[in-house]
Amino acid sequence: MKSHAIVLKEFGDPNKNLIYRERELPDLEPNQVLVEMKASPINPADINLVEGKYGILPDLPAVPGNEGIGIVLETGPSVTKIEGGDKVIFPNQLGAWCNKRICESHHLIKIKNSFDINQGAMLAVNPPTAWRLLNDFIELKAGDWLIQNAANSAVGRFIIQFAKIKGIKTINIVRRESLIQELKDLGADIVIVDREPLSKVVKNETDNASIKLGINAVGGLSAKEIAKSLGGNGKMVTYGAMSMQPVMIGNALLIFKNISFYGFWISAWFKHTNPDKIKAMFDKITTIIQQHNITVPIEACYSLDQIHEAIEFARKSERNGKIMLSM
Amino acid sequence: MKSHAIVLKEFGDPNKNLIYRERELPDLEPNQVLVEMKASPINPADINLVEGKYGILPDLPAVPGNEGIGIVLETGPSVTKIEGGDKVIFPNQLGAWCNKRICESHHLIKIKNSFDINQGAMLAVNPPTAWRLLNDFIELKAGDWLIQNAANSAVGRFIIQFAKIKGIKTINIVRRESLIQELKDLGADIVIVDREPLSKVVKNETDNASIKLGINAVGGLSAKEIAKSLGGNGKMVTYGAMSMQPVMIGNALLIFKNISFYGFWISAWFKHTNPDKIKAMFDKITTIIQQHNITVPIEACYSLDQIHEAIEFARKSERNGKIMLSM
Repeated sequence: MKSHAIVLKEFGDPNKNLIYRERELPDLEPNQVLVEMKASPINPADINLVEGKYGILPDLPAVPGNEGIGIVLETGPSVTKIEGGDKVIFPNQLGAWCNKRICESHHLIKIKNSFDINQGAMLAVNPPTAWRLLNDFIELKAGDWLIQNAANSAVGRFIIQFAKIKGIKTINIVRRESLIQELKDLGADIVIVDREPLSKVVKNETDNASIKLGINAVGGLSAKEIAKSLGGNGKMVTYGAMSMQPVMIGNALLIFKNISFYGFWISAWFKHTNPDKIKAMFDKITTIIQQHNITVPIEACYSLDQIHEAIEFARKSERNGKIMLSM
Repeated sequence: MKSHAIVLKEFGDPNKNLIYRERELPDLEPNQVLVEMKASPINPADINLVEGKYGILPDLPAVPGNEGIGIVLETGPSVTKIEGGDKVIFPNQLGAWCNKRICESHHLIKIKNSFDINQGAMLAVNPPTAWRLLNDFIELKAGDWLIQNAANSAVGRFIIQFAKIKGIKTINIVRRESLIQELKDLGADIVIVDREPLSKVVKNETDNASIKLGINAVGGLSAKEIAKSLGGNGKMVTYGAMSMQPVMIGNALLIFKNISFYGFWISAWFKHTNPDKIKAMFDKITTIIQQHNITVPIEACYSLDQIHEAIEFARKSERNGKIMLSM
């Protein structure tokens, strides 16, 4: 069977190294599933991977695309829990940028058929990242505070919305005035345009609240100020490094304030977590997303053969939503 | 009753602000104990406190001296577990630099009368710090590796010796060639004179062992290299900041290697820990120290009225042992 895919030949410039081409799919093994792909977003992590700047790199040639959604076309004879017509996503399985793919059945998560295709294509990375950041590092009860930078990122927006539902208060650091109202409309309690000295601004705006959790996707000076904003025994989790600057920690924060510092990477979490627990999390997240009508804005959709234009657009910092590949 | 004490009038230069003088002690309350002080070391934390550069500062005037040993002279009528002639130490109770002091009985830890006076005077801070660093952050089994900088410090030496007894292997970073044999004689597995790139040197010398725990009392570049030496899921604990430089953490260590970063301060530990647990720890530590004949070298003893000379000597970086006040 034929399929079309975007193939990465060598790590480097996407324009030179990503090629749209036909490929032959092998026959289905007993435990495999043939999926017709429907949509896949272009995430920063995808671009980092193409450029060879990601934590784990695949053998080449490879089909990029870290998340996406598809409809099951055919299942091998040993497959029991998935059938033709099911909507499926692929947590932690590279290879979404194609129109047909073969997967091991245990790598798939089935989601409700009522779930929107484009929103479903963005389920596998950002919502679980936000969920784990909120739940795995410190117990947050209704009324507790967290602070995050890059609050306008996809993860940042899910954090705002998930936190709001639990009654957790959020302080959100952004770089543009124009985002303040937008994030408040999502449920953000406080939105601050990053300015020095940030930790003092935060203290003023929160009436010196003792902030329990810091969530950092920037690094450098921003991470330092997030850490300085935390109350005693607070925790800061780093899941991104947009500034490419290291996290700098004043010794007094460690020794005298007992603040501790963690990293989080959703790929590692998927790799080390029991499949039933992963499935239970997606059931919970998808229910919440549907109940509360949480959506990620989409800026534009491209077809697979427009990959170079799509990536060029995805790299622009002032977008209003995700760039999506639609198959 | 009269006693003699070193009194700190104002934070700043020890020569100007520390005065040796007589003071009147109040009458003993029912739950109090009168102790005749025998010895107290001059620790870096004491000097930082005198200079006003410590995490928590006392109201002034105050008697410095964060640890020491004494013999009980008299007990109030409600005191049951301590009696005249007992040897006692004062975890987390400022005020050791005097010849007589009054303490609340529940602040005292009684140690065996067979315990050496000078060694006992140094029990309250460094051995429990080393013990908690070894035990509270990650489970270390015989054969597991840890790495520490400032390995020649009092805490560093206790870590080497406590680790050796448990079969835990230590990589010890020092600044002088002349310390290598000395620390090996204590039980250090590997001693490395700090040189760049330290983390590569460590990998070579350990055959790429996956190091589980990093212990940092320096900060800055040294802390960075300690962190880079750790294996995946490793932990680094900071308990000092000798370089006065912040801890810098590469984002990949946090996100992709899942290394986490903690601080430790023994004063906070004492403050938040149940007295029975504190007592049980000292029983364990003193037994180990006596059984294995662990001693801290002493460079010189001074009387209380020689405080300025004593502090001047204590500030020299190239000493071979502690400076002790003997009363």
